[in-house]
Amino acid sequence: MPFTETDQRIMQQVMAVARQGIEAGNWPFGACVIRNGKPLAFDHNRVVTAHDPTAHAEVSTIRLACQELGTHDLSGCEMVTSCAPCPMCFSAIYWSGIRRLVYGAFPEDYFLLGFNSFIIPPEKMAETGKVRMIMEGGLLREENRTLFELYHAKYGRIYQ
Amino acid sequence: MPFTETDQRIMQQVMAVARQGIEAGNWPFGACVIRNGKPLAFDHNRVVTAHDPTAHAEVSTIRLACQELGTHDLSGCEMVTSCAPCPMCFSAIYWSGIRRLVYGAFPEDYFLLGFNSFIIPPEKMAETGKVRMIMEGGLLREENRTLFELYHAKYGRIYQ
Repeated sequence: MPFTETDQRIMQQVMAVARQGIEAGNWPFGACVIRNGKPLAFDHNRVVTAHDPTAHAEVSTIRLACQELGTHDLSGCEMVTSCAPCPMCFSAIYWSGIRRLVYGAFPEDYFLLGFNSFIIPPEKMAETGKVRMIMEGGLLREENRTLFELYHAKYGRIYQ
Repeated sequence: MPFTETDQRIMQQVMAVARQGIEAGNWPFGACVIRNGKPLAFDHNRVVTAHDPTAHAEVSTIRLACQELGTHDLSGCEMVTSCAPCPMCFSAIYWSGIRRLVYGAFPEDYFLLGFNSFIIPPEKMAETGKVRMIMEGGLLREENRTLFELYHAKYGRIYQ
């Protein structure tokens, strides 16, 4: 079984955090860093409110987790994120030392937000960069997709 | 001529900033965001001192520039960076809206620091992700390489 009960429970919390992000005006994504089977840090995308194009949910959550631990090394940790990470986020996850990644929606699920360029799926990033990461996608995919629809109904497309 | 006088002058300043980073214990990289032909923000890598695996020089500099302008959008800006950006940094540059990139050293120049996995050159990232960015590498390559040697002599390899 690819997804554990912990993955399932944490993905529900990730979606709740993403919903808070949407309310605040941010893009509809959330993530969690897990350490020793317990959530260490949750965050949502903060690009708009933090004026930071690098503050995707995965990057923001990695930063939080590292502040919590006082290190730049998250080796042995895992990540649950609401969608397939973009190339920046995949790379940030890799550099942080995280080697197991669970994601919800697939890239094509957020095309309605206008992300239709610079899509490199995480599996392709790993292959191109010749690195290993355990990855499982599709956990609560439809529920995560609903968050993108909620965002779209409220604010329209992110990229025109 | 691919490199302008501004590129050359700013690369000298980028290397000075990278040297400050090395003194502080950070990895030997620096970057600058240029707006309307003038430097808007300089920064060096801060991974070690900021406990942030995402704080590569390019990401840190983009964040600074965005704070300066109060926006997550650097469209129309350019970047000068001391080496070919890693996949995370290439992607951060792309997401920020920067579309012209000048870099110093090539990936193989920092293999002595232990970066020998997850190397995807920026030109390959652009091709794989089907996006356009004007890129010119090799500006003051040998001088930038010297900074990597300085770091290596002082601290050894970053990755074992």
